[in-house]
Amino acid sequence: MASSPFDWIDEQARQRERAGLVRTLRPRPAESGLLDLAGNDYLGLTRHPEVTAGAADAARRWGGGATGSRLVTGSTELHAELEHELAAFCGFEAALVLSSGYAANLAAVTALAPHGSLVVSDAGNHASLIDGCRLARGTTQVVPHRDPDAVRKALAAHEGPAVVVTDSVFSVDGDAAPLRGLAAVCRQAGAGLVVDDAHGLGVLGAGGRGAARAAGLAGSADTVVTVTLSKSLGSQGGAVLGPARVVDHLVNAARTLIFDTGLAPAAAGAALAALRVLRREPERSARVRAVASELHELLTDEGHSAVRPDAAVVSVRAPSPEAAVRWAADCRAAGLAVGCFRPPSVPDGVSRLRLTARADLTGAQIADAVHVISRTAP
Amino acid sequence: MASSPFDWIDEQARQRERAGLVRTLRPRPAESGLLDLAGNDYLGLTRHPEVTAGAADAARRWGGGATGSRLVTGSTELHAELEHELAAFCGFEAALVLSSGYAANLAAVTALAPHGSLVVSDAGNHASLIDGCRLARGTTQVVPHRDPDAVRKALAAHEGPAVVVTDSVFSVDGDAAPLRGLAAVCRQAGAGLVVDDAHGLGVLGAGGRGAARAAGLAGSADTVVTVTLSKSLGSQGGAVLGPARVVDHLVNAARTLIFDTGLAPAAAGAALAALRVLRREPERSARVRAVASELHELLTDEGHSAVRPDAAVVSVRAPSPEAAVRWAADCRAAGLAVGCFRPPSVPDGVSRLRLTARADLTGAQIADAVHVISRTAP
Repeated sequence: MASSPFDWIDEQARQRERAGLVRTLRPRPAESGLLDLAGNDYLGLTRHPEVTAGAADAARRWGGGATGSRLVTGSTELHAELEHELAAFCGFEAALVLSSGYAANLAAVTALAPHGSLVVSDAGNHASLIDGCRLARGTTQVVPHRDPDAVRKALAAHEGPAVVVTDSVFSVDGDAAPLRGLAAVCRQAGAGLVVDDAHGLGVLGAGGRGAARAAGLAGSADTVVTVTLSKSLGSQGGAVLGPARVVDHLVNAARTLIFDTGLAPAAAGAALAALRVLRREPERSARVRAVASELHELLTDEGHSAVRPDAAVVSVRAPSPEAAVRWAADCRAAGLAVGCFRPPSVPDGVSRLRLTARADLTGAQIADAVHVISRTAP
Repeated sequence: MASSPFDWIDEQARQRERAGLVRTLRPRPAESGLLDLAGNDYLGLTRHPEVTAGAADAARRWGGGATGSRLVTGSTELHAELEHELAAFCGFEAALVLSSGYAANLAAVTALAPHGSLVVSDAGNHASLIDGCRLARGTTQVVPHRDPDAVRKALAAHEGPAVVVTDSVFSVDGDAAPLRGLAAVCRQAGAGLVVDDAHGLGVLGAGGRGAARAAGLAGSADTVVTVTLSKSLGSQGGAVLGPARVVDHLVNAARTLIFDTGLAPAAAGAALAALRVLRREPERSARVRAVASELHELLTDEGHSAVRPDAAVVSVRAPSPEAAVRWAADCRAAGLAVGCFRPPSVPDGVSRLRLTARADLTGAQIADAVHVISRTAP
């Protein structure tokens, strides 16, 4: 066979195979029978009848797609309604909906970090925040994980606009950022704070109003929050919440808003319906935190090394990458879906099972899950 | 009022205002009464009953969201079905669906341009390809618009993996890339060719199978195509089409696939339904091209300076940015929605109205549109 420009791919594939790091897609049926502790449907809303009806009704009323950029034909009154209710719920002046949480993070970081500015980024931040930093025209300084004093020092060494960028709850271990401490050093230095609340919305704060609300930062003039509509709100999409002038600025400057098709009406409709369920049933957010605590407690009682959860993610240490992969596979064979994080996805080199709590898990399901994890443990 | 870290935004806002460049969102009602020559619903499918039913049924069956990354819980059998049919329709070995066309372009360019490689990028490429180049670890060389000889020279000066990246149909003027010429220089140099067919799928090639098919490149070992599901297919999302090994590589290496929630089932369902309508009614792709030609011909007859359309986008020159904005506003007041491109969105500094043809426009609507454009002309 003649050589191809993509031959180098095969060598990388062989290396991955030798290292046991091959990732494959595993399409699931609509009803898998697995107990799901791997997905991010924290509030159990993605299949709620009001949420699926919200999606279906929006598709029928508005069409299958938004038909264009939010700036041309892609802004419907449904998008505006969702933005209005989301901002009000979380306690911010304005909101801007984008096609994914990834796009929302690229938008917020790039638009708020112009040439000459400084971005201070936590070492444990999500890939989408890291890519936002890489695309931004400002200079990025990565600081140690959860370290307001390191942030303070980085800010002190810079003149001009600066933003501090952090996850509210870190995806790998489920640990929370020190938001009050970060806000204090930001205020002292006159820097903005950008918080990715993907894992906090619906889980933290009064009635699931998010981590910024819990830290007393919602609606402040120097705080911008990004959220995803694809976890607690059971849909797809993302949003940026903040002062109206920041949102207006994003409309004019954020490339993932300007040059992307608007979020599909069905996704906007599902997210709006989920938000309304959450507002009516605030106990869902308390329940998901209780489920996470119970998972952690039972696993610790059984001798596993699990990180105390600050939100809905429970991280359980595995002795090696190979053991983590086998553990997750054994769980699956026993009817339990769990996540498995290992290098290179985890920068610290520590492999773990990643469990996600859901508000709709029963006590019996929690006990079952712990039982399976224990009897399949390496 | 105390100073805020975002005060610099106000100065930028004032500059935009002085320059008449303020962008605002204008949420539309479900039935606006406007004749739409601004959206990208090229085949008139976004409100097709089978497409909206495809979205609604998928939401009911699978839920409002995919619940996780494609690698964890976010791959459903519906995603696999869409990927299979999309690849087969366009003539490629495999396909990978992502949450937007933007995400698909970031995935393809970054994963195929590793450290040490060269990316040769057309000066007129879409923002998402440009951002892909900026995120890629390889080195980017921008070459003049539609210039295979410049590409040849850039490739000749490089050792190691290389890809050439181009839109098939450029968004601003609707002109087509010289794909056969680019493919020839790529083959000669052993480089890969990445084609963003956002404006070609559904419009170009036999039965709307896209620009790569039209150029005889579909299924070749060295061609990768990205498409959007949000234009001809009336939904949301994007996909990468190519050799199976390239798709497998993206599953392992593309951050916008690995770290993003999978496309919402409703969007996958709508796109799949639209694809099936297109397969059954291939005349839609011929019709949208005929509508674009007719728009161009009538506008030229009336003395406007319009670019001969290679696909569904018809670009009409305006004498100045201010005139373009006023022209588009006057069209809107007369019941016609058209796009308006002006600096800084257009790198060449030329302002224009941007009209999009649709397969479901009638002769009377085309005549009406031309009439409005003419009588509001500056």
